[in-house]
Amino acid sequence: MPGKTRVVSFGVGVIGSAVVKTMVEKKSDWIDIVGAIDSDPSKTGKDLGVVAGLDKSCGVLVSNKIERTLAETKPDIVVHTTSSYLSSVEQQLIDIATQGVDIVSSCEELSYASVVDQKIANELDSIAKENGVSILGTGINPGFVMDALPIALTAPCISINSIHVARQMNAATRRIPFQKKIGAGMKPDEFKDALSSGKISGHVGLSQSISMLADSIGWKLEQIEVRTPEPVILDRKVSSDWIAVEAGMVAGTRQKALGIILGKFAITYDFAAYIGAPEEFDAVEISGNPTVSFKSNPCINGDAGTIAMLINMIPRVLEAPPGLLTMADLRLPRAANMPLSV
Amino acid sequence: MPGKTRVVSFGVGVIGSAVVKTMVEKKSDWIDIVGAIDSDPSKTGKDLGVVAGLDKSCGVLVSNKIERTLAETKPDIVVHTTSSYLSSVEQQLIDIATQGVDIVSSCEELSYASVVDQKIANELDSIAKENGVSILGTGINPGFVMDALPIALTAPCISINSIHVARQMNAATRRIPFQKKIGAGMKPDEFKDALSSGKISGHVGLSQSISMLADSIGWKLEQIEVRTPEPVILDRKVSSDWIAVEAGMVAGTRQKALGIILGKFAITYDFAAYIGAPEEFDAVEISGNPTVSFKSNPCINGDAGTIAMLINMIPRVLEAPPGLLTMADLRLPRAANMPLSV
Repeated sequence: MPGKTRVVSFGVGVIGSAVVKTMVEKKSDWIDIVGAIDSDPSKTGKDLGVVAGLDKSCGVLVSNKIERTLAETKPDIVVHTTSSYLSSVEQQLIDIATQGVDIVSSCEELSYASVVDQKIANELDSIAKENGVSILGTGINPGFVMDALPIALTAPCISINSIHVARQMNAATRRIPFQKKIGAGMKPDEFKDALSSGKISGHVGLSQSISMLADSIGWKLEQIEVRTPEPVILDRKVSSDWIAVEAGMVAGTRQKALGIILGKFAITYDFAAYIGAPEEFDAVEISGNPTVSFKSNPCINGDAGTIAMLINMIPRVLEAPPGLLTMADLRLPRAANMPLSV
Repeated sequence: MPGKTRVVSFGVGVIGSAVVKTMVEKKSDWIDIVGAIDSDPSKTGKDLGVVAGLDKSCGVLVSNKIERTLAETKPDIVVHTTSSYLSSVEQQLIDIATQGVDIVSSCEELSYASVVDQKIANELDSIAKENGVSILGTGINPGFVMDALPIALTAPCISINSIHVARQMNAATRRIPFQKKIGAGMKPDEFKDALSSGKISGHVGLSQSISMLADSIGWKLEQIEVRTPEPVILDRKVSSDWIAVEAGMVAGTRQKALGIILGKFAITYDFAAYIGAPEEFDAVEISGNPTVSFKSNPCINGDAGTIAMLINMIPRVLEAPPGLLTMADLRLPRAANMPLSV
């Protein structure tokens, strides 16, 4: 189909499947899914439609061969959704980039890779430039509500004293892996153990978002302090469709992160996700001249928001110069080629 | 001063003076004001510092010679603040662009010139490209709260049904020319006459903002309907530092604008500015999947916000490709080179 954007889905897990479903059902006027890659033996060789849970065939088989799939399908871009961690995706991204294909990825650490591992970030940037490809890590958070949006909201400011960014969500509105990831339903001791063992790792992206914000406005942070996630324990029973949380048990988590300049908390982040949260919001409060203080109601849904960001940033990545890019490097984000759903 | 951005201020009126003052007092670490242009005979030949109301000399004399000033001062960019109307600024912009100098302008109609006059927009775009310069019209509104911000807020949307954008301000917080412009203190009949005679013209920018938003997300509007400004008449006395408004008199104005697709109001704008407004806010409500609904408290101050936008967009304009550009063409806006004011 000439003129359409040719996409390969790399990773057909929960997010990858939802992206595929959205593309097939809502974006087929401008997106053509030409290939799919996943290392899971239970998925390879099967039709993407079946693996992604669509009610129809995609005419594309899931393959575990990166190089061959890209060579045969010649995509414009890979939508990559395999892991939150830079070290886990590094080789995958190199394999894609060396085939000359642009990448938009849900990998949280990739959203501002330099703060995770400057060496890997430099390597990816070099390989991207050598191969003329653009690489972006994005999503709802990191990617939008706690970085791109606060950055944009600093634009009408003459001066800034401090920036506070908060996101609070009722985890009951999210998919079950997310609810488990934040410890919902655990006993307080279990939560502690899960933190120690790495079963719960807190929200991935806070240091990335803070760094992107500070660097964008020219603030040199002395330190970024990402605090240990705290359990949210309520004195009443709350529940989602999947998990019942008795009073005194863990309903979810709250995590703070700080950007410090001259010993002051110049940037403060507060991320809370728990079942039964009475209010859902995203908030950006910029103390400065003028004051800029926005709050949403509800918070932007994380699952739909991440899928949308991965799809909507495709045109921005395709038009961008080569390199390892961030949301702050690209043109103003927007819903891409939105069909008339009025 | 090598390394600094060399700026010429074109227009030393209220906004231009405030921009100069802010640059001198807050941005002197990266901006060097090298020249000033104004056609007002009472200003030409005087020191910019005196004309702009600073308590010190700028070492720059206000000139009415565009070509000579630009040739002698070799600025990187002109900050242009002379008029809201495209037809009034067209020749000024051409005179600047043909000298090869980038432009950031507060001209409201320039923010999305194609909707005002496609011929002028095309001409400016051609001249900009021929001379390798970038031209941007921006400010708080149009420029940010009713266009760039709503556009960015569509990014996390998979689908959109309708978009509502509202701004409500207490005009008492704004400078007096603004209060007069909205008819504050007039009798209802006077307001009507002032509208007829063109003394009051409503907010300039609504059709620009709506067009920019619709075009950015790929919505083809059948029609943009900018309604006549209505007087806001309260049943109580309200006042600003300069104007007392008796009950039954005009406290300010409210104006609606609509973007219509398939006969439906897909985009609705509501702009209200009056003395005594009980609440000040900017709001963007996107009905879609997911819902995105943000509201500020207070609204972003229009005077400070416009000054900030004109200054903060300078690096974005300088890095942009040549042409007549819009906020949607540039990289994510942000506070530029923010000093550490923590």
